[in-house]
Amino acid sequence: MVNNVVRVNAGRRGPVKVAIVGAGSAQFSLNLVRDLCLTEAFAGSLITFMDINPERLEAVEGLARRYARELGVDLRFEQTLDREAALRDADFVVNTAAMSHDDEEAQRATFERHGYYRGFRVPHLNLELMLAVARDVARLCPDAWLIQSGNPVFEGCTLMTRETGVKVVGLCHGHAGYEEIASVLGLDPAEVAFQAPGVNHCIWMTQFRHRGEDAYPLLDAWIRDEAEAYWARPIARFSDTQLSRAAIDMYRTFGAMPIGDTPRFGGNQYVSSWWYHTDLAAKRHWYGSLGGFDSELGWGRYLDKMQANIDGILRVAADAGASVTAAFPPRHSGEQIVPIMNALANDHQGIFQVNVPNRGAIPGIAADVVVELPALIGANGIQPLRLDPLPRGILNRVLVPKVLEMEINLEVFQTGNARAWVHDLLLDHRTRSLAHAVETLRAVLALSFNVRLRERFGNLDDALEFAPAGATQHTVTV
Amino acid sequence: MVNNVVRVNAGRRGPVKVAIVGAGSAQFSLNLVRDLCLTEAFAGSLITFMDINPERLEAVEGLARRYARELGVDLRFEQTLDREAALRDADFVVNTAAMSHDDEEAQRATFERHGYYRGFRVPHLNLELMLAVARDVARLCPDAWLIQSGNPVFEGCTLMTRETGVKVVGLCHGHAGYEEIASVLGLDPAEVAFQAPGVNHCIWMTQFRHRGEDAYPLLDAWIRDEAEAYWARPIARFSDTQLSRAAIDMYRTFGAMPIGDTPRFGGNQYVSSWWYHTDLAAKRHWYGSLGGFDSELGWGRYLDKMQANIDGILRVAADAGASVTAAFPPRHSGEQIVPIMNALANDHQGIFQVNVPNRGAIPGIAADVVVELPALIGANGIQPLRLDPLPRGILNRVLVPKVLEMEINLEVFQTGNARAWVHDLLLDHRTRSLAHAVETLRAVLALSFNVRLRERFGNLDDALEFAPAGATQHTVTV
Repeated sequence: MVNNVVRVNAGRRGPVKVAIVGAGSAQFSLNLVRDLCLTEAFAGSLITFMDINPERLEAVEGLARRYARELGVDLRFEQTLDREAALRDADFVVNTAAMSHDDEEAQRATFERHGYYRGFRVPHLNLELMLAVARDVARLCPDAWLIQSGNPVFEGCTLMTRETGVKVVGLCHGHAGYEEIASVLGLDPAEVAFQAPGVNHCIWMTQFRHRGEDAYPLLDAWIRDEAEAYWARPIARFSDTQLSRAAIDMYRTFGAMPIGDTPRFGGNQYVSSWWYHTDLAAKRHWYGSLGGFDSELGWGRYLDKMQANIDGILRVAADAGASVTAAFPPRHSGEQIVPIMNALANDHQGIFQVNVPNRGAIPGIAADVVVELPALIGANGIQPLRLDPLPRGILNRVLVPKVLEMEINLEVFQTGNARAWVHDLLLDHRTRSLAHAVETLRAVLALSFNVRLRERFGNLDDALEFAPAGATQHTVTV
Repeated sequence: MVNNVVRVNAGRRGPVKVAIVGAGSAQFSLNLVRDLCLTEAFAGSLITFMDINPERLEAVEGLARRYARELGVDLRFEQTLDREAALRDADFVVNTAAMSHDDEEAQRATFERHGYYRGFRVPHLNLELMLAVARDVARLCPDAWLIQSGNPVFEGCTLMTRETGVKVVGLCHGHAGYEEIASVLGLDPAEVAFQAPGVNHCIWMTQFRHRGEDAYPLLDAWIRDEAEAYWARPIARFSDTQLSRAAIDMYRTFGAMPIGDTPRFGGNQYVSSWWYHTDLAAKRHWYGSLGGFDSELGWGRYLDKMQANIDGILRVAADAGASVTAAFPPRHSGEQIVPIMNALANDHQGIFQVNVPNRGAIPGIAADVVVELPALIGANGIQPLRLDPLPRGILNRVLVPKVLEMEINLEVFQTGNARAWVHDLLLDHRTRSLAHAVETLRAVLALSFNVRLRERFGNLDDALEFAPAGATQHTVTV
């Protein structure tokens, strides 16, 4: 949550039902349970874990029960494989489900064989899942808040709010990146005020104050005096991306700092800022020795770390004699989810960084596009702050292109228009010809798990209807 | 003018003063004079020719006088090198001035040496000129209509209307491309109704009717049965681009035909549709044997044809004994300029294809962006028709990207931000690195005539502040 929070504790209004879709994500569920246990106003509430993996579900529910019991907290838990049962009468639906990482890596490898280093994003399966959940919410618990945690938050929340009447709020950790900037500059994050609006994974720090004074001059001095030394040392943590060469280059180009996941992409990755990402050497220059979060080194380390976390949690889950609270001490996770539920359910108001439909909050972005911005949340709902227009360069060269990337993804997803999908890949800076784009997508469609994409885009070769003959197979580097 | 015209002849309201900026463009001025001579309501009006080239000016004014005298028409003419004198008390200012073709070709050659086949558009000098004219209009004849004929109409009209209070209308011939489509399909253009909104050089035929019936099925049949034979024959005329493979490919991709100059680019040339333009072979595949209007063959032929026209006109101008009306028979040129002036000055109403601020006419485009659309014009001004939203794919994958290209050009022009200019070139699909973009623009700035650009973008190397060292000179192919 943002640090400049207005808090009015309006107290408890009664127990709620929270349904977690994709609850097999052990770390996510454990954090949620921990925060719920620490929020007294939720006493008596029911937490329903839903997933398609029964073993994971069993482990998560067991851990949750033990956690609450050890803390003497009054929370009820249940598990189900049936999404409809989970959603029925829910007050909050937290959706963290997503395409499997294994499938995602196989798809990435296919793109790489066709010359797309680190792949190309195909959000269709996750969008399909999100839309199905939102439609179920509309049908089974239409007054519930749908808290979207799985990616792509931007596309998904825009799609869900457009296609259903559901109250959706998308959440992400990225905005906390301002804390890293403050720390590196030697400032106490608690004394820093910031605002970083935009769209998810593309937010820009338009306000940055330390004790009420503009803190950007401190950043300028750091760039002048300390940045080179900072960049010269080996990178150990992902958060270093926050002040990477790429981030500072974007700041110099646009006049505001990219925050959180933003420096990873700088808009839509392979159109707005392809030159940071051409190969591992480029990534290491711009993002430090790991090549940033998205290089094979960075991403590999992320997957390893995630697996180690899961293994640790599952080990505790398997050891019925272990103390869960000793393994995972009861302190707030820093996630916004439970505080936001507390604001909505119990009028415990605060300012949070959320993803909701724009409706005029950010000038230059359409009303029905889900944007990320600070909002006051209370029992009356979510009230975004109205913001000054973003700098012209950010709007025209990054943010609106990012909105277009989203719109194209939704168009392709919703129409199943293969020509539109091919056109989308043609816009990628690495695509060398119409045939190159078609061959690549053909290979992606051939992946065994892409059965639904095959149904949708059977007519891929239509895009070559008028293309030069014989212009095929010139770029595959198996 | 569009063919479905509502005409109410409200008669004559009195003589006007028409100032033509860039009147040394002999063919343009001759067409204008011809149409004025054929429009009785303008009797007694004063036409002021202004240019920076006194010889051309003398030739044009002499021709105009002889033309009016031979026809016995009461029009007055004067010439001046002084723009202020020309504009003072004008009712209409027609601006056709633009950067010299020689400079433009030198600039294109520089881009080509750096790997940008057929160059990259740098509209700054023309924009500077347009803004200067608009500011003079605001100061000297604030009630005049400024009719913008020189390119870039899209960027220029948006800039002028945003930065001055002047009444601007931009004009182009492109929309007449529907006639070519009708003719090839064997339809009488007089029986065809169409609408093709968008922005200048990016308009899409959303309505296409023959005798009241949807004519798109006729086009589909032509594509199935006749297109290949049509594409197989040698291309003799530029208008063939209208039904080129590229145009039909765009139609299949977007669901509406690109009209006029639109198939040349399909949005912003080197981002939205780079694959039609990679080299002459690609251009010949997509645009026929000349490679379209913009290949070295097509453009060379265009420049030759233009020069031949000018030479012909200047020959008549130099021969005081020749009959001007015999050389250039008195019939309407087909240009919209004089009919629009007649509508505005004399309430001779009609529907015309114009470029004016959107203000809600096309959903999905900002209010202050100048769009191209049909409008009713009369003495009360220009009333655009409100239009249905354009197809989703056109909006997201072509039209809004084209609007962004315009916004970026205006940002770069207005701020003189070298990093923004470099970023703009980086978005071109052909750019291979940050250093490649900077080197190329450095070479463009070094051209002798680019003295004003050098003043503006002196800090070009700032864009390399954090770039990898030694990554230079890898793409120059002198």
